[in-house]
Amino acid sequence: MSQQRPLSSGLEVRRACREGSWSGPTAGLAPGYAQANLVMLPADWAFDFLLFCQRNPKPCPLLEVTAPGEWSPPHTAPLGDLRSDLPKYRVWRSGELVEEPADIHRFWRDDLVSFLIGCSFTFDSGLRSAGLPVRHVELGKNVPMYNTNIPCVPAGRFQGNLVVSMRPFTPAHAIRAVEITSRRPEMHGSPVHWGLPEQIGIANIHRPDYGDAVPIHADESPVFWACGVTPQAVLMASKPPFAITHSPGCMFVTDRLDRSLVGG
Amino acid sequence: MSQQRPLSSGLEVRRACREGSWSGPTAGLAPGYAQANLVMLPADWAFDFLLFCQRNPKPCPLLEVTAPGEWSPPHTAPLGDLRSDLPKYRVWRSGELVEEPADIHRFWRDDLVSFLIGCSFTFDSGLRSAGLPVRHVELGKNVPMYNTNIPCVPAGRFQGNLVVSMRPFTPAHAIRAVEITSRRPEMHGSPVHWGLPEQIGIANIHRPDYGDAVPIHADESPVFWACGVTPQAVLMASKPPFAITHSPGCMFVTDRLDRSLVGG
Repeated sequence: MSQQRPLSSGLEVRRACREGSWSGPTAGLAPGYAQANLVMLPADWAFDFLLFCQRNPKPCPLLEVTAPGEWSPPHTAPLGDLRSDLPKYRVWRSGELVEEPADIHRFWRDDLVSFLIGCSFTFDSGLRSAGLPVRHVELGKNVPMYNTNIPCVPAGRFQGNLVVSMRPFTPAHAIRAVEITSRRPEMHGSPVHWGLPEQIGIANIHRPDYGDAVPIHADESPVFWACGVTPQAVLMASKPPFAITHSPGCMFVTDRLDRSLVGG
Repeated sequence: MSQQRPLSSGLEVRRACREGSWSGPTAGLAPGYAQANLVMLPADWAFDFLLFCQRNPKPCPLLEVTAPGEWSPPHTAPLGDLRSDLPKYRVWRSGELVEEPADIHRFWRDDLVSFLIGCSFTFDSGLRSAGLPVRHVELGKNVPMYNTNIPCVPAGRFQGNLVVSMRPFTPAHAIRAVEITSRRPEMHGSPVHWGLPEQIGIANIHRPDYGDAVPIHADESPVFWACGVTPQAVLMASKPPFAITHSPGCMFVTDRLDRSLVGG
């Protein structure tokens, strides 16, 4: 209706990205709409990666997988275009990041299969709507993320360690957070660790490998969830000849409401 | 310890099948151990079928998918042999059933991928342990199953309609059954229909397409769940050149306890 509409739906965010009027992070945009991590791989690597996701549902909860060459995901965003509707992409060759474009039309191949993977932005809003304080959201920061020593279950040519996100909670809030997130297997599910960072290979909780550090109060413990950055760590470790992903924080915003994704 | 051991664990059932001393249905064997439907397909059909399962989690809840040529499933039965440890198999060529052997060593190919799919035997014991009367179990019959007019979500070369199983319940029991089964997405999850068989293309509820008819009392409605026979209907409709499945009722009994499979 107005000239400057807020980006309040998946359609509006995708259109803004496609037209080039939005190129930043998607956290906080289109509240209530599910956002997704993106991994694109050539068809001859797609079975191995689909199997990797099936075996590692916490880091890689699949929202949708396209057919080879299909750039519009019929289930989550039938009018979407995965080649242009994200703010920023990463292009990978043999596990190395080679480019970070705003549009991937020139990289598109008809053998690419797209994997849309559930994202914890949604999950944070679930915690907040249950009354839990989510530190990084309160501080306007990105969630702190860490490489761990926890191996994913390998599948074909894919292997690598889990990346986790961390939220500090008091014990009572941590228990409530387990309750809430265990009902959301479509977005990383229950935590993978609680308490002792060194047990999962994190040397310094104040120096996250991705995102921003957040303070942990004296009455709080760090609680760790499997993170959608894991696939990018796995691409780096497994070195497929070609891949495209979203750029961290710059997700694909779907037409599906978070609430519609709650698993059975 | 004794000479005639009952078949009370996954290992014992699998050994009896392998040695040829058990060739019948597995319902009621190894109580508490998860049983699985089996589909084996050549690697060049495996991505399409894995995608089919991802898109149709109610009829095809995956417990494990092997690598090509791997005949032992490391996650659900690391000492198992999928070529011999089921009581009876079905061999399919271009969607037609060509043989029903007790062992598939002579059909084995190094490009076969095995899909183990959750089974409603487990699900019946969950309903019973919650105090619900499960008619076909009480009568010592196989569950009644029906072809429907509900299309599965197609994936690549795979398409076909849903097959459902039916249990009659009073309204109060049906509501409880929805509660219980909605927590078991790894074994078909919540019902797909309740009440009017003709709405889903079932002409005569007293003439199931598979299994045995059971009486429905005057105060009961038929409640329908997605069924693990669906993949066999899909193979018949989609006609891959070669496939092997379990024979209906003759499942793969895993080492995993039912309770260990309960999803997040």
